[in-house]
Amino acid sequence: MSTTVITGIGELVTNDPAREGLLGLVADAAVVVEGTRIAWVGPTADAPAADVRVDAGGRAIIPGFVDSHSHLVFAGDRSAEFEARMTGEPYTAGGIRTTVAATRAASDEQLLSHVGRLVAEMRSQGTTTVEIKSGYGLSVLDEARSLAVAAQFTDETTFLGAHVVPAGTTPEDYVDLVTGPMLAAAAPHARWIDVFCEDGAFDVDQARAILTAGSDSGLRGRLHANQLTYGGGVRLACELGLVAVDHCTYLSDLDVESLSDSGTIATLLPGVEFSTRQPYPDARRLLDAGVRIALASDCNPGSCFTSSMALCLALAVREMRMTPAEALHAATAMGAAALARDDVGVVAPGKAADLVLLDAPSYLHLAYRPGVPLVAGVWQGGRPVLGTPTLG
Amino acid sequence: MSTTVITGIGELVTNDPAREGLLGLVADAAVVVEGTRIAWVGPTADAPAADVRVDAGGRAIIPGFVDSHSHLVFAGDRSAEFEARMTGEPYTAGGIRTTVAATRAASDEQLLSHVGRLVAEMRSQGTTTVEIKSGYGLSVLDEARSLAVAAQFTDETTFLGAHVVPAGTTPEDYVDLVTGPMLAAAAPHARWIDVFCEDGAFDVDQARAILTAGSDSGLRGRLHANQLTYGGGVRLACELGLVAVDHCTYLSDLDVESLSDSGTIATLLPGVEFSTRQPYPDARRLLDAGVRIALASDCNPGSCFTSSMALCLALAVREMRMTPAEALHAATAMGAAALARDDVGVVAPGKAADLVLLDAPSYLHLAYRPGVPLVAGVWQGGRPVLGTPTLG
Repeated sequence: MSTTVITGIGELVTNDPAREGLLGLVADAAVVVEGTRIAWVGPTADAPAADVRVDAGGRAIIPGFVDSHSHLVFAGDRSAEFEARMTGEPYTAGGIRTTVAATRAASDEQLLSHVGRLVAEMRSQGTTTVEIKSGYGLSVLDEARSLAVAAQFTDETTFLGAHVVPAGTTPEDYVDLVTGPMLAAAAPHARWIDVFCEDGAFDVDQARAILTAGSDSGLRGRLHANQLTYGGGVRLACELGLVAVDHCTYLSDLDVESLSDSGTIATLLPGVEFSTRQPYPDARRLLDAGVRIALASDCNPGSCFTSSMALCLALAVREMRMTPAEALHAATAMGAAALARDDVGVVAPGKAADLVLLDAPSYLHLAYRPGVPLVAGVWQGGRPVLGTPTLG
Repeated sequence: MSTTVITGIGELVTNDPAREGLLGLVADAAVVVEGTRIAWVGPTADAPAADVRVDAGGRAIIPGFVDSHSHLVFAGDRSAEFEARMTGEPYTAGGIRTTVAATRAASDEQLLSHVGRLVAEMRSQGTTTVEIKSGYGLSVLDEARSLAVAAQFTDETTFLGAHVVPAGTTPEDYVDLVTGPMLAAAAPHARWIDVFCEDGAFDVDQARAILTAGSDSGLRGRLHANQLTYGGGVRLACELGLVAVDHCTYLSDLDVESLSDSGTIATLLPGVEFSTRQPYPDARRLLDAGVRIALASDCNPGSCFTSSMALCLALAVREMRMTPAEALHAATAMGAAALARDDVGVVAPGKAADLVLLDAPSYLHLAYRPGVPLVAGVWQGGRPVLGTPTLG
């Protein structure tokens, strides 16, 4: 197995709990990659020899972003709906149906091509692990093929048949479909099951029934909750002991207490608030209460079509009172935790060699330089997948 | 002279007042480039032959961004100051002095290299015209060499000796220096003169004296005003008939009236409000009053280190109630107007061939997909300077 040593890393973010501080920073660092894994981390001065030597030239390296919430399997364009929203129309869950029609009409090849482009776009921005949901099929066949497409690109596939109730059926009948034939067709392609628990989508009792059925079929639960209004979704997630509950924009004190007590991760999606002009959740309130926070993109054609984890991080700092260190940790190590993964999000021996070289001396530049493409190189599972020709 | 025809442009933004709508959109368009200029614009079906043919594949083309406000000539890193500000420290003009010390200590080669990297970074994000200010030298020699460095990269150089009063001198003595020997040394390298008119920097009378002296030396005036507080700066700019006054964060009704009456362009810099957590100016209030608005980055190491005009546009839509069309127009045609340029910012025969190919079907995606690097190709003065291998 060939080895690579990356030396001269001005600032290495390890997220290694065995090191000091939230980010486990190492100055003038080196990393040895052996095959798909990290074999050694330490100061450049102590770095062992390797087959290939790459110099980072004093630039920073961070763990690849772990984007634990996205909806990449879709077709169609909703930029006109975005434009209308920006001139005063409110965001509602109903727009999802527009994408459903386009997705059903698309060929498998079109869906594969579209997802592949978005995954490549994410990778070029430093995302090395991405969760992908279905949810724009909403029929047995279209949900199953959406997940089969997603599974070509990631192990973190999520069955979201319960995204909205499609036209032409009742909520009761649709929940029966989702928990019955649709679940049976989707389960072989999915690791997770998710429900959009919100006014206009599914209520708490329906969400509970769907998550329970999913669990009986071997799928782990996650939940969209409290995005547009207060409600019981977050408490349901905590009651069921889900690993993560996503959005958490409207939280009562009781919701915060439940999150703190249960250990369920609150996955905040500030790109959604940016693109729907909603108020941002108060991350500081959650952190002060001991709640664990992940950041993810929610990349989707309706409420948030950004794929940039760096922008989400910058928004979390500007709008949600997270420190740059907390935001980066939430976008890497906590994203991994929100997917119940312990092999990514951390730069330490034995972990996956998912590394992002920044064209900057410090991770601070991710928030300090919002909107600027700072990713100079990416290794995914030990393979250089971006930017290697420009490496020193 | 060789000619190129770009065909299959799904949506062409021309900003041509002879066409319909603010953006003068043309669907399924073609553009012919002859040497450094645009020779023809129209439907692909009518496109004339040319030596080289490039197909845009249905993607959108916009005029290159015109960034009329930046401070790229500097050295040093202020990311730690940014981090402190994000955890509660207020932004003041005083931090400029940190950069002055580092800039004075840097070699000409270091300054050239640093500006060159930032200009390239801007170009890769679609900026084809950029104004660059001095203002981190604050001595006769350091201001003159800052402008000489800037002039290597752009014709739009601005003498900003009056950025702050440097340590070790009085405001009165410093204004004498700026209007005397420093202006004499700077003028051969500059087109514009600018003053930071603000509490803690220069007051209205000082700004008037400096702008008048600059005008006597053949430099056209611009002004930083009303960034941190209400004040007389905007009205001074209008009184003097300046082409643009920049920041305009705190505006009284009288300020708005003055802008409307004078025709002076208000250049808004939303990246600054993003990075200093200040309230955003209300662009809608200005537009409703008939004020002309430009958008620029203000790229600088202190208050805003973004170089992304696309992010500024997205912020203007999210936070300042501009429509996506108004924001794009302000970042292109109005940026050109703010630099008194009629050869850029518009795609029409005779104009500079500064074109940006987006990896998107519509300019709407610039705001719809915040933070995502959407620039797939750039022509600057007719030359392909980015992305050409992926064309066609």
